[in-house]
Amino acid sequence: MLAFVVRNHALTAVRKPLPRLRRGWALVRVRLAGICNTDVEILRGYHAFHGTPGHEFVGEVVGVHGAGSREKNNWLGRRVAGEINIACAALGFQRPCEFCRRGLKTHCTRRKVLGIVGHDGAFAEFLALPVENLHAIPNTVTDEEAVFVEPLAAAREILAQLRVSAFRKAAVLGDGKLAQLIAMVLTSTGVPIVMFGKHSEKLTLARRNGIKTSLVRGHAKDLKNSATRGKFPLVVDATGSPTGLALGIALTEPRGTLVLKSTFHGTAPIESWPIVVNEIAVLGSRCGPFPKAIALLRAKLLDPRPLITRTFPLSEATKAIKFAQQKGVLKVLLKP
Amino acid sequence: MLAFVVRNHALTAVRKPLPRLRRGWALVRVRLAGICNTDVEILRGYHAFHGTPGHEFVGEVVGVHGAGSREKNNWLGRRVAGEINIACAALGFQRPCEFCRRGLKTHCTRRKVLGIVGHDGAFAEFLALPVENLHAIPNTVTDEEAVFVEPLAAAREILAQLRVSAFRKAAVLGDGKLAQLIAMVLTSTGVPIVMFGKHSEKLTLARRNGIKTSLVRGHAKDLKNSATRGKFPLVVDATGSPTGLALGIALTEPRGTLVLKSTFHGTAPIESWPIVVNEIAVLGSRCGPFPKAIALLRAKLLDPRPLITRTFPLSEATKAIKFAQQKGVLKVLLKP
Repeated sequence: MLAFVVRNHALTAVRKPLPRLRRGWALVRVRLAGICNTDVEILRGYHAFHGTPGHEFVGEVVGVHGAGSREKNNWLGRRVAGEINIACAALGFQRPCEFCRRGLKTHCTRRKVLGIVGHDGAFAEFLALPVENLHAIPNTVTDEEAVFVEPLAAAREILAQLRVSAFRKAAVLGDGKLAQLIAMVLTSTGVPIVMFGKHSEKLTLARRNGIKTSLVRGHAKDLKNSATRGKFPLVVDATGSPTGLALGIALTEPRGTLVLKSTFHGTAPIESWPIVVNEIAVLGSRCGPFPKAIALLRAKLLDPRPLITRTFPLSEATKAIKFAQQKGVLKVLLKP
Repeated sequence: MLAFVVRNHALTAVRKPLPRLRRGWALVRVRLAGICNTDVEILRGYHAFHGTPGHEFVGEVVGVHGAGSREKNNWLGRRVAGEINIACAALGFQRPCEFCRRGLKTHCTRRKVLGIVGHDGAFAEFLALPVENLHAIPNTVTDEEAVFVEPLAAAREILAQLRVSAFRKAAVLGDGKLAQLIAMVLTSTGVPIVMFGKHSEKLTLARRNGIKTSLVRGHAKDLKNSATRGKFPLVVDATGSPTGLALGIALTEPRGTLVLKSTFHGTAPIESWPIVVNEIAVLGSRCGPFPKAIALLRAKLLDPRPLITRTFPLSEATKAIKFAQQKGVLKVLLKP
């Protein structure tokens, strides 16, 4: 099959055999894959991953290994999205780790992560995942919607961590694709949102979803001295940038909550004393609940499709991930 | 009166008049003042404060302005500790700020802070504070205990923010005076504590209070790769050092809580992605409940006096704050 791997900070096409299946795993033909900022960070060295990236996808189950015929019939031919963390049981460990025992499979200490840690991902014609990671996509949800299930679940995670409706307003930092999904999800709770971003065309898109926006000109430092300083009880950093944390700290009001959604490679200089003095809670937030994300799409409560800037054939993945890093570009998809 | 002020990164003795009192304020004769790391940070430029530092004290009320004779009789001659945040009402504002309205006076947006922000502190013969900030010290609590009420309340704040008894164990980073108080307070909840510190003689002191200790040799980075990495559901950073945050992130388990108690001047380079990936909650924690701290001392539930390394006469404050920065030194007191 055709697949892409990370070589010298770029995606390189390779031919390789179909992934081999463990018992209880499924072979999935990728129908669409999404390019995430994490994939760009992987090219820069994040997690030192050198396999096939790609963790956002919708696909079709074309094989199931070691399942009863009934379960096979359940899955074969189904369109699916897949959770990206592969935990103890699916990796063949007899004794679960402490986190799997507690039901926190996304924090499994032995986990492999689709397209990020130790397991090949979706920038390929096929991928393999444990059946327990799969979620069927309803017929009324298109591929172009379903490919957003993974990042939408990550956005939805904030609602699992916090009672968002209790906040009188919230700020979303960043105007990229994850920031847009987060703003949509937060707006669905009824809380007024202001999105702070640097790209007027991306902010325009957010305004179409009823989200207030604020264009950040020049350096983020300017914003720290503005009238919005310390004015938000809830702030979500989805800038994907090292400056996001410091900016988030500056915008969060005393005793407020700052949710971090940005993962990037490297360090950023932080003044931590305002966290202490203002008694801010800084909360990391990663993967989220797939069923909730699918339910949002099925109920047509939000539509992520306007975020799609362009779809490339899989064979042009090298070009596509370069395109994804250009100014003004939001979601880029790969179609095998 | 004799007072010390910050000049060229050092304490300088000056003669100045007694502080003038607003209505509802008290004049307090300082009996003992404590030197805190924040005072050292102030000499380095923290908060650009150039008045009289000192926010830990026990004193005697010698004057009350604008109170009825009954209230005056209540306070005159009483030994007191004093809350350090001076909020809207005491500053003469008719309309309280948003945080005062919510009852969060320690986060008053107009606040002055004794010896830290805009109001002269305890490294002097006398200081002034609003009567509403004062707490009477019971006769059974000595001056040497009472001078710890402010930092002990700050340590106790963690118990106001978190249900500490729900954690199966906790780590305290740092072996200085605040770290020691925090370890004592956390131990009082029954949770097993490990203190990580660099000074064997300070760790010995902690062990006398029934606290397990771990000597950190060499660079903090070594600890990050040790067997303790990601093993603590609750971690408190009281290192007072820029390296504490990164170390705390490394020791906190997934979905765990990292409490920040260190304030220091300047920035530290932070890798924030582990906060996101491990969904850690980083919680800033500052001033705490004075009545709870006084109750701990009155009930003899803990004894901070072994933390006193030396008491200097106030006139030797310049020398005392230099001494306070020497290796192995814990609490240094000033006696006017």
